[in-house]
Parts: sequence; C-alpha cells; structure tokens
Amino acid sequence: MLPIALDAMGGDNAPGAIIEGAHLAREAGIPVLLVGLPDVVGETDFPSISASEVIAMDAEPGSSVRTMKDSSLVRSAEAVRDGQASAMVSGGNTGATMASALLRMKRIKGVSRPAIATTLPVLDRDRPNILLDAGANSECNAEWLVQFARMGAVYLRTLHNVEKPRVGLLSIGEEDSKGTPLVKEANKLLADAEWQHAAGAEFIGNVEGRDLLGHDVDVVVTDGFTGNVALKALEGTASAIVNALLQAFDSSDDARTGSALLMPALAPLYGRLNPDSIGGAALLGVNGLCTISHGSSSAKAIFHALQVTHDLVQRDMVGQITAAMATKPAS
Amino acid sequence: MLPIALDAMGGDNAPGAIIEGAHLAREAGIPVLLVGLPDVVGETDFPSISASEVIAMDAEPGSSVRTMKDSSLVRSAEAVRDGQASAMVSGGNTGATMASALLRMKRIKGVSRPAIATTLPVLDRDRPNILLDAGANSECNAEWLVQFARMGAVYLRTLHNVEKPRVGLLSIGEEDSKGTPLVKEANKLLADAEWQHAAGAEFIGNVEGRDLLGHDVDVVVTDGFTGNVALKALEGTASAIVNALLQAFDSSDDARTGSALLMPALAPLYGRLNPDSIGGAALLGVNGLCTISHGSSSAKAIFHALQVTHDLVQRDMVGQITAAMATKPAS
Repeated sequence: MLPIALDAMGGDNAPGAIIEGAHLAREAGIPVLLVGLPDVVGETDFPSISASEVIAMDAEPGSSVRTMKDSSLVRSAEAVRDGQASAMVSGGNTGATMASALLRMKRIKGVSRPAIATTLPVLDRDRPNILLDAGANSECNAEWLVQFARMGAVYLRTLHNVEKPRVGLLSIGEEDSKGTPLVKEANKLLADAEWQHAAGAEFIGNVEGRDLLGHDVDVVVTDGFTGNVALKALEGTASAIVNALLQAFDSSDDARTGSALLMPALAPLYGRLNPDSIGGAALLGVNGLCTISHGSSSAKAIFHALQVTHDLVQRDMVGQITAAMATKPAS
Repeated sequence: MLPIALDAMGGDNAPGAIIEGAHLAREAGIPVLLVGLPDVVGETDFPSISASEVIAMDAEPGSSVRTMKDSSLVRSAEAVRDGQASAMVSGGNTGATMASALLRMKRIKGVSRPAIATTLPVLDRDRPNILLDAGANSECNAEWLVQFARMGAVYLRTLHNVEKPRVGLLSIGEEDSKGTPLVKEANKLLADAEWQHAAGAEFIGNVEGRDLLGHDVDVVVTDGFTGNVALKALEGTASAIVNALLQAFDSSDDARTGSALLMPALAPLYGRLNPDSIGGAALLGVNGLCTISHGSSSAKAIFHALQVTHDLVQRDMVGQITAAMATKPAS
C-alpha cells in the first residue's frame, strides 16, 4: 500500500516522539512518509517530503492554511490528494489539520460538513464506542447530525465489524421531548426509518452523558461543541482518577505491596484508559483519510494512530463512506 | 432552626431510604419535617405534613405541578414559602421539584432563571468545585450566564469560604474566540470588571471539560444542556472506572490480598467519588432553599443532602444571594 504521510512537526513532542512512532510503525510493517523541515527531521532513511513552514499549535487555522502553503500540514494533505500517500496523520494544530484536509482533499459527495469521530473506551470490552462530532463544528443543524450518524455507523461497521450499529443522540434525558431545539429536530429526523435502512443502522433515541462508555449504544451523535465538552469531561475525569490511584498506590509500604499484587488485574484497565492506546480521532467526510492525534502524543500514541489509520486504509473507509452517502433513502 | 421539609415520596428508594436518611439526620441534630402520604410513610414520630398525591418520576413537570396541588412536592415547597420549613429536599422528579420551588417560592429579585448548582469532587482536596447550570435551563442567554456566575460565586464563598472564587466559562478552547455564539457573547459580558467587583469574583476566561475536577477554576458556568451532558459524562466515567476497579480487586486471590492492603490508601478517594457523599444539587435563584437529590439516593445520600442543606440554612444562602443580586454594578 501507499505510505501514510506523517506530519513530523505536529505536536508538543515533535519531532522526536513522532519519528520514534514512525520507527515503531515500520517495524510493524506499516509504511510511513515523513513530512517536515529537513533540518529538523534530520537524516532519516524514511521516504520524506520536505516542507519549509510549521503551523503553530495556537495559530488561527483558516488563515494559516491559506497562507502557509509549504507547511508540513498542507503538504501532508496534498500528498494524500496527489496519490503519494494513502492517509495523513498529525498531532499538530487540530483546526489547521482539519482545514488542510478539507481544503486539499475536499468533501465526499453528500457530506455538508466533515466531523471528528473519536473512540470512547468501553472498559470491559475490546471494541470502543464512537462519538461524533467531537469538535469540528461548534454549531450544527439537524441534517448534519443525520449525516454524522450515517458516517459513524459506517465507521463502526467497517472498522469494528458491528453489523447494525445502534445510534444514539446525545441529550439530557431519554424522552424525545428533552433537549435543545436542535436535539428535538434531529431526534425527529433520526427516527426516520429510511436513513437507518440505507445506512444499516438502528436509531435508539436519545442517550445521556453517562451512556458514553456503556454497552447500550454504539455511535453517539452530537454537535461539535457538546461533543468536545463531553469528551474532555470524560478524559479529565479518567485522568484525575488514574492520577489519584497512582498516588495512592505509592503512599505507603502496604500500598506498594498491595498494588504490586494487583497489577496483573489492573493492567487491562490501565491499557484501555491510557491515552497512548486511543490512537487519535478520524476526520470523517473528507475525500481522503486524516487522523488527528492528541497534541501531547507520545511515540506509542503516534504508533497506535498509524496502526488505526493503516486499518482504515486497508478497509477502504473513504470508499465505504462515499458509497453510503451516495445511497439515497428510498422514497 | 425550622425543620427541613423532606419529600418522603421522592426517588427510586422512597419511602424506605428517605425515612432512614431522616433518622440519620435527626441523630446528627438536624430537624426534619416529613412530607408524604400518611399510609405510605407509616407511623412516625417525625413532625409531618400529609399529602394525597405523588408526582411520578417520569411525569411532565409543569402540568403535574399545576394540577397536583396536594402532591408531596408542592406541599414541601409550600412549607418553605409559608415559614413552616427552612428548606426542602427531594430525590423525586427533578423538573417537578424545580417547578414546585419556582412556582411556590418565586424568584429572587434580579434572577431571570434559577439554575442547578452541582458540586464536582476535586480528588485531592476537601473542597469541591461548582458547576452551574447543571440542567435547569436547556437554553440560556448570555445575561443569564452572568447571573449564574454571580450566584455560583456567592454559593462557593458562603458554603466553602472561598474569598474570591475564580469563575470559568465552559467552552472548547481557552481562546475567547472559541465556542458557540452564546459562549462568545457570555465571554464578553463576563470579562466586564464591574460584575466581578460586585460579586467578589474573578473571571478567568474559558475553561474546558478537563478542568471540571481540577484546581484551576472554582465555579464553572454553562447553559443547562451542556452542563447536564458534562456532569453525566463525568459521573458515567467515574462510575465505569470504579466498577471496573471493584471487579479487578475481586478477580484473583492475589488481587484480593492486594486490594485489602491498598484499602486504607484508597478509602478517601472512594469517599470522594461515592455518589452518596455528593449530597445533591442546589436550585439557586428561588426565594427559598431547595436541594435536589439523585433519584437513586440511598439513606446515606439523603442524610448527606440534609447535612448540606442544613449548612445552607445556617449560612443564610438565600439572604446572601438576594443581597448579591441586589448589588448593581457601579456604572
């Protein structure tokens, strides 16, 4: 397969952790194309594309992408557009990553707005749930939420073999009457049988914040503002608890002995909660693959993002979404 | 002091857990007035008010409160209005609890909409953070968010002695330019020095979902839809992790030995994460005290809600908010 374009300049730990992640991926048989400033990337035996600019983590996305045409992000997106790379991965400025992908790869037909699909760990199961939009669009209309539902269902079926994903709409109560005007309108549109049939999904109604990590829903749909707040509340809670646990484990001799005995039982849980194992979020709806990693990504996190992206290439996620969005509900 | 009116019919575990909670409170010197159906409450030596109706957990709040005038919820709110009780506590239908309090106690002057203020545990500190609105108003305007900020600051100062609470606005990035139009407008209004001076608070700008349990903010302000989603995401994550931990602790002989050794170190963390110790949310902005407990409240949770409510009475929370809302920013 074509290599995955990896933005060597993106993220708080670039380029060190990024290049280390590329090495891990290559050892696992995943081809990588490094995109970055030659003198920063240094000597490397990876295939590479050189760029002369870096979009800063806090730069204004739209104008940066328009003016910095030789940036590593824009060059990464162009590599996908031009058939030099099968996908792009970046831990850089999220907004600029989205803007680069959107402006260079364009939208899939039938998609009004791309959305960020993020995986949510289900602690007692291997397969995650999916939340979208996790932050691409602060404001949405009800039709877009239905598009997100279609794309999310395809994503979960394609990547995790869930035959008929259950789609829930994030609200503040299960009753259809609960929520904002947007939620109420989206609830009505999502209840329509035709899109569910066309997408091979089942709409199960409104779900709540507490369902995100549970077994009762597979794909949670919401606007990008609510989705981002919920995701960060979830991440913040998990990280606060994990930190408090680690502190308790080291707080006395008894605690150290006890935690050593417990480690084998806790390892799988720790693995599922570890941000390194999440692997980044997918920008769905653009005509090419784009994975957005955390800015704080370690080498392992970049490796995992490359693994997930490799799966998305192999399973032709873009083709699957394109086909699903082209299916008109029978009327 | 006047007794606290306790809705004996409210919640999944009523009346058993509620009455047990009342006993625990009485032992701690907190006077309670039971409100409920005499034949359900049974023989009791608590002072009581009898009601003939119960508003169901899933009943439509507004119409229920208007038509069921002899319900335990409406009678509880009337007891506060009529000076028979110092406050009301219910684990019943949240919407109906709010509607009863609002319709019978009315609003404090200067408050457009009451808001639900909920405490967020900070895992390595005794004092919690405060989030409001946690669900009273799905849709808000920017002026209401400023009112929430004022009330939240007064709440934290009055109950937890925080001299100058730091107020953050919940958004999806720290930059003022991030978020929905509501957030952007509220950010501008909150940045005004005059309300901060009048409320004795400091606006620190936008905060994110991951700051909710942290040390960088004291009062987090948001609309009731976003607040409720964030709160439930947080609660769901905490409960998923605690359940996974408890399962791991019991998964082998080694794990059982290890967790026994760890227990003393984990007990404070478990205490802070235990829903029983949260004690319910306060409806701020009505002209009387109203504490809303979880529908699933145990006796201990009801006891804790009565304790917190007792503190609110002793510290004259309604008087404090009334005074703060009457202070016009100098102009």
